[in-house]
Parts: sequence; C-alpha cells; structure tokens
Amino acid sequence: MVLSWDSPIRHELEMVEAEMQRGVFSEQAILTEISLYVIGSGGKRIRPAVTLLSFRANGGDDSEISRIIKVASAFEMIHAATLIHDDINDAGELRRGREAAYKRYGVQKALIAGDFLFVRSFSLGGAFDERIIQIVAEAMTAIAESEILQAIHELDPDTRLKEYIKIVIGKTAKPIEAGARVGAYLAKAPLQAIEDMGAYGLNLGIAFQIIDDILDVTGNASTLGKPRGVDFMDGKPNLVLLEAMADPTIGPEVRRLFLKKEKTRADLDAALSFIATSDAVAKAKDIAKEYTAKAELALANLPESDHKRSMKQLAESLVERNT
Amino acid sequence: MVLSWDSPIRHELEMVEAEMQRGVFSEQAILTEISLYVIGSGGKRIRPAVTLLSFRANGGDDSEISRIIKVASAFEMIHAATLIHDDINDAGELRRGREAAYKRYGVQKALIAGDFLFVRSFSLGGAFDERIIQIVAEAMTAIAESEILQAIHELDPDTRLKEYIKIVIGKTAKPIEAGARVGAYLAKAPLQAIEDMGAYGLNLGIAFQIIDDILDVTGNASTLGKPRGVDFMDGKPNLVLLEAMADPTIGPEVRRLFLKKEKTRADLDAALSFIATSDAVAKAKDIAKEYTAKAELALANLPESDHKRSMKQLAESLVERNT
Repeated sequence: MVLSWDSPIRHELEMVEAEMQRGVFSEQAILTEISLYVIGSGGKRIRPAVTLLSFRANGGDDSEISRIIKVASAFEMIHAATLIHDDINDAGELRRGREAAYKRYGVQKALIAGDFLFVRSFSLGGAFDERIIQIVAEAMTAIAESEILQAIHELDPDTRLKEYIKIVIGKTAKPIEAGARVGAYLAKAPLQAIEDMGAYGLNLGIAFQIIDDILDVTGNASTLGKPRGVDFMDGKPNLVLLEAMADPTIGPEVRRLFLKKEKTRADLDAALSFIATSDAVAKAKDIAKEYTAKAELALANLPESDHKRSMKQLAESLVERNT
Repeated sequence: MVLSWDSPIRHELEMVEAEMQRGVFSEQAILTEISLYVIGSGGKRIRPAVTLLSFRANGGDDSEISRIIKVASAFEMIHAATLIHDDINDAGELRRGREAAYKRYGVQKALIAGDFLFVRSFSLGGAFDERIIQIVAEAMTAIAESEILQAIHELDPDTRLKEYIKIVIGKTAKPIEAGARVGAYLAKAPLQAIEDMGAYGLNLGIAFQIIDDILDVTGNASTLGKPRGVDFMDGKPNLVLLEAMADPTIGPEVRRLFLKKEKTRADLDAALSFIATSDAVAKAKDIAKEYTAKAELALANLPESDHKRSMKQLAESLVERNT
C-alpha cells in the first residue's frame, strides 16, 4: 500500500479542522455558516499541511502542539477569507464544485464573513510572539499587494515572467512559505533551517500555482470543481496563456482572443484548441518542475524522517495532480 | 480662551497620524493611496483619542508611548477598513464629504484596500501581548457580528430598543470601549480602573452613535459630508426612526414610508416632515444623554487631571455636536 503524503500528519490535520470549527463560532449563526461552507468545501489544506510538516520535520514536539495547530488553522482561515473576497471581485460563480459564497449568501454577508474570518485568524494569532505575527502579517500584505498587481496585469498579454512570478509569490507562495517558516520557528529550529523551510514553501507554492494554471486550461469541470478556462475568461494571463501568446505560430491568434473584453464560450474553445496544438502546457509544466526541484533541494540539510519524506512526496505529487 | 477637548493629546494625535502614514505604506502605490484617501478624509479620531486619553488619565507615561501610538493607530485603521467595506455593502456614495472609496477606485481595489488596512492594523498588533490582541480581536468580531444583525433588521420597523443598542454597541461602542480599556491596561492601571474606562468608552460610543442617528435626520448635507436621511433610504431603523415609528400620531405614516423597498426623494422629505412635528429627535437625544451621563459617571474614581477633564468635555461636546 502506498501511503499518501499526508499520512504522518493526519491526526494534526484533524485537529486543525476542529480548531477551525471552534474558531469560526459566532453568535451570529450566519457568519459561522458561511465560514464553514467555505472551509468545509474541501480544498487541499496545503497551507496547514506544510506548516505542520515543517514543524514535525524540524523536531517540533507535542509541547507546542496547541500553538502549531492554532497557527496552521489561521493560515487556512486566511486562505478561506481571501477566497470569499476574490470570488466577489472576480464574479467567480463556482468554487470547489459549489456555488461561490457570495452567490449563495449575497455579496453583503459574504464580504462581512470574509472580514470575520480575517479577524478570527488574527484572534488565533494572540498566542504568538511578535516575530510570528510579523511573518503572518507580511504574508497577508503580500496577498493584498499581489491582487493589485494581478488587477494591473488584467488583459495584459505582455506580462513578463518576472511579474507573473511576483503575482504568484504574493497570492499563493508567500502564505505557504510563511507557514513553513513558522512551523520551523515553533520547532525551535536554527535560523538556517527556518530559511531552508521558507525556500521549500516558497518554491512549492510557485509550482502549486503553475499547476493550477495548467489545470485551468487542461482540467475538466467535474474534477476541477469549476469550469475550465476561468483565467482566460477573466483576462488573467496565467503561465500557460503567456507561453501560448509567446508562441510564434499560435501566439497572434490566442492573443487576439485573449484581448477581447467580452469573451464568448466559442472564443474560449478556439483558444483552448490553439493551445492544445502548442507546447505551452509542456513549457509551463517544465517551469513548475524547476520550482519543485528547488523545493526538494531546500530539504537537503533536513535530517531524514517520515515528515521529510512527506514533504518530498508532496512536492512530487503536486506536479502530477489532476485536481 | 476655551480649549477644545483634544488639546492635552494633540501631540499624540499627530503621532498617530504619522504612524498611520507609515502603516499604510505599500509597494503597490494604489493601496497606500486608497488608504490615505480614506484616513485622510477627516473623521473625528474618536477611537485613538479615547485610547490616548484613557492612557494618559491613568498615568501612562512616555515609556509606553510607542506602543500606545501603535494601538491607537490600529483602532483608527480598523475603523477606516470597515468604512470602506461598509460603503461597498451599502452603496453609500459619499463619505465625509467625498466620493466613497469604491466609487472612486472601483469595488475590486477598494475591497482589497479594506483587507490591506485590516492586515496592517493586525501587523501593528504584533508588539502587544495576548490580552491586548484579544481585546482588539473581540471588538473586531463585534463589528462583523453587528453588521449582520443590522442586515437582519433592515426594513424592520419593530426593531426593539435592546436590539438597536446591541447593533450600536457592536458597530461603534465596542471598538471605543476596547480602545479605552487598552489605554488603561498599557498605563498599568488596576483592574477596576480598566473596567471603569471600558464603561466610559462603551457608553460614550453608544451616545456617539445615537447623535449620529439624529444628525442623519436633522443635519445638513454640507456639514455632514453626506446627504441626510441615508438610514431611512437604506431601510436602517435608526433610533430617531424607531421613536418616530412608535409615535401614535405620525408612527403609521412614517412606518408606511419606511417599509417601501424603493424609496423616492419625496418619501424621504415626507418622512422628515412628519418627524419634525414629533418629539422623536428629542426622545433620542434624551437617551443619548443618559448614556453620556453613564460615561461621565464611570470617571468618578479617576483622579483629577487635564486628561480626565478632556474625557468629560468630549462626552459633553458629543451630545451638542452638529457634525
């Protein structure tokens, strides 16, 4: 039997679920309901998982378990809050196979529930010292900043790879990096190990997002939990689209379709057909693999353990995932 | 010469302005711009002022000045964040005499800027112990919960006074109470003094909001910085409207107008004319004065000082203000 990457932390991940359930309790039942609707809709729990793995792989023991569970939960709740607000901003209709929260509960309540989730994450942060709060706050700042950068590059077919990576770092990789750093910090790992874990989380996060970009183009709606081609329709130049638009053969056509302000289903189908004839997906996947390799390299000095093996497995399975 | 209530803390309030300017710096210039647009549009700085006055009146000295400035700034930044998100939710067009942030910068960027302001407030909290973070987080939770309660009572002419006060506590009074408590706590005041300051802030906050309700009905657009009658138009049963709708003579007419889902300017004018013939405003003002009296009473055990006098003056001037 092949164990899945999360088996050594399955118990801790269950504790995270319980912590989040407690964390979103409110006397205003609708806030709890919306929070649980979003948190309970699945998701891969990458943020808490990386936090927990980094903690355990660096020798973190049960004396700190209550705090590591709190901070791992806070990262996932911050993620849920940003999903709610992102869907409002992007008018995304489906999320993880369900109606987006704002579609189900209305913009007003969803917006407040997002704020509520931020506050409750903040509240979990009360147990931590200044260093940890700064790491978390910097990651949260990076999320907001990258959303602005993403808005700036909407409908921009000439977004440079460097800018694209900057957006990806802010929206996805920084929070994962922050979790990895905090995990090692709470395990009282030496400074170099904290840096290494940060590098693991950062590169893993970039690879994770690139694979998301690929799945947005190649995935199918039933496993994705949302229609494919969302980035194209929203005018977001993801890595596959950027590679396709840089292609000398299909580039001009994909670019023309991408630049249309009002896109139809037929535009999407045409763009996806062009992309299927190109090596844009393969190129994006190669770039993802480069980052996965960097993530694995960052583990070089970590002593062998089940948790370290999980971290490697996670990096490898990320690139091959289809959901 | 009569000194205004804020004269003993004018220097500290300037430090708060500088701290907020630093606090909203971002490499994404638009986030800084939106933040400063909202923060810089005035406002009475009641939250930081009460925090600072409570700190000084309880003997807080310059050894804690950097922390008290940080937390006072955090309260104002949280307030600014909620204003941005509230305006999105209420479609409020004017705020403090200017276009609402979402009208000027678009919903997407305004929503992100609100999140950014929450995060940066959180970041300022890094310097504090768990007790303070919990007080601030509870106040922030109360804001979100009261926004839900307010949504529940939209177009509800039978909102009971108790429910109304609960909304007011959450949206306005709790954050002011929290500032007052934190100020005393950082001044190392004894527990009873912290409780007293909390009672001052809470009752002051309730009175403050009731006066806001009155001004929404009686004020004029140029001093208010927004049109009058916003609560009526939005279907929010503020205290004057509740008193008017409970009036045996004009009540039925005001209630009928208030319950209309699509209200016209003529509906508003009619409702305001009815209200002008009633004692609804006088009744609301009496209730505000009861809370002001409670706020002043909470100062009874505080040693005399310039700062205590300011706290009294603030309570008294609040009830008489016309902006």
